[in-house]
Amino acid sequence: MNPSNIDIAQAAEMLPIDQIAAGLGIPADSLEQYGRYKAKVALPWLAGLADRPDGKLILMTAMSPTPAGEGKTTTTVGLGDALSRTGRRAMICLREPALGPVFGMKGGAAGGGYAQVVPMEDINLHFTGDFAAIAFATNLLAALIDNHVHRGNALGIDVRRISWRRVLDVNDRALRDIVVGLGPDNGYPRESGFDIVVASEVMAIFCLAHDLADLRERLGDIVVAYTRDHRPVRARDLEAHGAMTAILRDAFAPNLVQTLEHTPAFVHGGPFANIAHGCNSLVATRAALKLADYVVTEAGFGSDLGAEKFVDILCRSSGLRPSAAVIVATVRATKYHGGVEVADLPAENIAAIEKGSANLIRHLGIVRDILGLPAVVAINHRAEDTDAEIAALVGIVEREGARAVVARHFAEGSAGAEELAHEVVRLCDEPSKLQFVYPDDASLWTKMKTIATRVYGASDITATTAVRAQIRRLQEEGYGDYPICVAKTQYSLSTDAKLRGAPTGHVVEIREVRLAAGARFVVMVCGAVMTMPGLPVVPAAASIDVDENGRIVGLF
Amino acid sequence: MNPSNIDIAQAAEMLPIDQIAAGLGIPADSLEQYGRYKAKVALPWLAGLADRPDGKLILMTAMSPTPAGEGKTTTTVGLGDALSRTGRRAMICLREPALGPVFGMKGGAAGGGYAQVVPMEDINLHFTGDFAAIAFATNLLAALIDNHVHRGNALGIDVRRISWRRVLDVNDRALRDIVVGLGPDNGYPRESGFDIVVASEVMAIFCLAHDLADLRERLGDIVVAYTRDHRPVRARDLEAHGAMTAILRDAFAPNLVQTLEHTPAFVHGGPFANIAHGCNSLVATRAALKLADYVVTEAGFGSDLGAEKFVDILCRSSGLRPSAAVIVATVRATKYHGGVEVADLPAENIAAIEKGSANLIRHLGIVRDILGLPAVVAINHRAEDTDAEIAALVGIVEREGARAVVARHFAEGSAGAEELAHEVVRLCDEPSKLQFVYPDDASLWTKMKTIATRVYGASDITATTAVRAQIRRLQEEGYGDYPICVAKTQYSLSTDAKLRGAPTGHVVEIREVRLAAGARFVVMVCGAVMTMPGLPVVPAAASIDVDENGRIVGLF
Repeated sequence: MNPSNIDIAQAAEMLPIDQIAAGLGIPADSLEQYGRYKAKVALPWLAGLADRPDGKLILMTAMSPTPAGEGKTTTTVGLGDALSRTGRRAMICLREPALGPVFGMKGGAAGGGYAQVVPMEDINLHFTGDFAAIAFATNLLAALIDNHVHRGNALGIDVRRISWRRVLDVNDRALRDIVVGLGPDNGYPRESGFDIVVASEVMAIFCLAHDLADLRERLGDIVVAYTRDHRPVRARDLEAHGAMTAILRDAFAPNLVQTLEHTPAFVHGGPFANIAHGCNSLVATRAALKLADYVVTEAGFGSDLGAEKFVDILCRSSGLRPSAAVIVATVRATKYHGGVEVADLPAENIAAIEKGSANLIRHLGIVRDILGLPAVVAINHRAEDTDAEIAALVGIVEREGARAVVARHFAEGSAGAEELAHEVVRLCDEPSKLQFVYPDDASLWTKMKTIATRVYGASDITATTAVRAQIRRLQEEGYGDYPICVAKTQYSLSTDAKLRGAPTGHVVEIREVRLAAGARFVVMVCGAVMTMPGLPVVPAAASIDVDENGRIVGLF
Repeated sequence: MNPSNIDIAQAAEMLPIDQIAAGLGIPADSLEQYGRYKAKVALPWLAGLADRPDGKLILMTAMSPTPAGEGKTTTTVGLGDALSRTGRRAMICLREPALGPVFGMKGGAAGGGYAQVVPMEDINLHFTGDFAAIAFATNLLAALIDNHVHRGNALGIDVRRISWRRVLDVNDRALRDIVVGLGPDNGYPRESGFDIVVASEVMAIFCLAHDLADLRERLGDIVVAYTRDHRPVRARDLEAHGAMTAILRDAFAPNLVQTLEHTPAFVHGGPFANIAHGCNSLVATRAALKLADYVVTEAGFGSDLGAEKFVDILCRSSGLRPSAAVIVATVRATKYHGGVEVADLPAENIAAIEKGSANLIRHLGIVRDILGLPAVVAINHRAEDTDAEIAALVGIVEREGARAVVARHFAEGSAGAEELAHEVVRLCDEPSKLQFVYPDDASLWTKMKTIATRVYGASDITATTAVRAQIRRLQEEGYGDYPICVAKTQYSLSTDAKLRGAPTGHVVEIREVRLAAGARFVVMVCGAVMTMPGLPVVPAAASIDVDENGRIVGLF
């Protein structure tokens, strides 16, 4: 039996984090250690690096995933280690795992096999407390809203139009829809609910903010409700943003850890890639670009969601410019998009690869042709893949004028991703010209339509009269220059999770529109979006434990 | 204008925490640093000290406080520093501040003036994440309960009899009474609510557990609900306790910080002193007793609540034996108990001191005569106290055959508490014989009656037929040997906050009984108990901010 992720992680010989930091030139007095193997790097020191040239930024994205995921995090780690192995000064930037899913279905999210960031248990559990701080900031704002109403409602908040929800980092479906404020003297009863922390706007803001001042400004901009005469009520109006900034101050410094092979890694922030933009914090990526020559960062889900938002939301507002992209594909997911049922996926099926590769080809088109990034396909190798399947997939990608490289980092660590590293270094020297999917000055409706038709292959978009009116109102209120953040299924290029492969001609329905005035984007909800997961029949929590030696067991 | 607490704290020259730890003989590899000035001390190393003799334990308690508090934490710090100043190897043990009240009304809880633990902002804000871990463990268990019901309810949980509530570390009255599980496919709607973290049973367990194995066992024992045929459903039945232990593992190691004068301090755990027992963690106090010759620890509220529970709950189950006690009194609180209205408290009023001292004398009787501890009264000096008032109060205490020492640590640091330190050292050499208020084998009803009559001065206790039946059932189910944890107002020795001074002859009504099977006590709720505070008209959050240099301001 192969060793589990946690077995491999616990057997690892980590270097003290101050040694990793010293290797990056971080002075000891700018390193806040959290135990021996985690640290935060002080923001003032990082700010002092502004004049250094940036390293090359490599964006890790993927084809439309199966529910198991196709290994973007694992490939990010493997590529980072392979870049180090081949003599480059490399760093990786990852999102922090959410605690809820660790105890639910998903398990850990710190890579896998011989491509992990460590200390794995710490990173998967509380890590350095960032998510707790983000939850507190979100929930403090919620308490201030209800308290304001309870205390006389000087701002005239319409309790029917409070959109701000509370958050917990627990998968808890019973909190999705609740009524708060019951009982005597506990305020006014109203419907509300909890989301998971990664879905909070504060998380998105945390990951988009340039610095503490920008963080504070954006927190103040959050629109939490409307008044009875339809004026927006902002966090600033409740005098909440200063306290929220105070609570987030320490969390805002990026977290330094290492891979199993000692490549330095920033693991910082972790917004959802549907309701939010799905990338680790800007401060971490910027810091890494000052400290390393090659920086690999991942965006959530497939390129239709994560990469599009990385470019249209994050790159647009930050000036980040990736030099190349890696599209993670698996034989398994390709067969799935070729129509194979999950139970039949292990069996060799060249025909399904031919058919399902349409999905991968579309992602290649999105990344290379629409976003303008030199791209390589990384075939994340799985034990059951046959040589014929791999050869078929490689051949298909080559017919598209791109390269597909087999990566075996899960089983082999950096040695398994050396070829990928060479190809990425080569691509970074190619000319690249990042292209946004839509211009800033297009209308919100046009932006959405452009994403749907260019990226999702849709023929049109649609919305009810009410939603259209809402979009029009946002346009009139001055939010027309915001980028769009689409919330839709990750399992299909369309908004229907069942449409596998490369669907075209479908119509995207905008079901709901949400203003994220602090994150500075407009969320267009296209399909059922789960902002609070539930627990499965047998939650992972049932097997997680501490043994008699104080060792954490059962965490995968 | 006098400098504020945060000004004094931020101006302090702290020693690196590894230097403080080295002074205690803690090896570097058993210290997990959280930044430069906070650290957790590894449990395995502490366990290895079992054979060392214990230092002397000093219990800090108080007269019935006014809403402002009488300065127990401040006096604990001042005494610790004065013990250090006079050449003793001293440590202090404090509870961790709750985050919610910091942003509500109370402000910080890390001492005040020149008697503080530092880094003050860190300790008051997230510190080392312990409360977040406790909240997560509590909320994970809640999610597992609702998920179990949603997934078929194999255990037959009666959804009307789920007593387990969720927690947040935010003052949020809108969450006191809520309905969860609304909406399609989100489980079953039921009434529930959130408490503040310090009110959770997990917090009490965290502070009573001897070691990780005991923690795990107690977490498994928690009764969260009853079945339709009235059998208890425990966390163990939901396979929750292993995961809860995993989530708490790192938090369970005590947090080492320092006072302004570099006395080492453990600040760890922080259960409410009404619904729970109100002392810092047992592991921290035990560790301190192995590392220092004099250890000062505080119990919540007045001696009727904190000290009684410290003895009857914590000492009983742990074997801790304090050598002496300090009763904090103020001229202000004495006048308040003498009937003076809050607005008139600053004016000299000897008659009110004569009258109100009855409250202090009763507390002296509880500590010295009932609990059997050699005791000194520490008069926590305030700027407006007159010499005549102080002299009157000292004289009254002396008439009771005890000493009252004026302590000026708030304004003067350790120099102001030297006399107190000398008196405490003297008391520690007196013979002391700790006495429990009631024997283990008394019935639950008799235990409650004994506390009420002996400690609160009541003539009797009463309860509705339903509550009596509930107490009888707990007795029959085998919980009769548990100690009692009374939840009542801290403002009076009685259960009526308005009864100042030293009321007698009142009748204590038990309104509600709650089993804390993991904490292993039975809570008797006598009066309105607030387990989720609200925010005031102008919350402290409105003034807390981060300035342009990244410094936290407005935190008091």
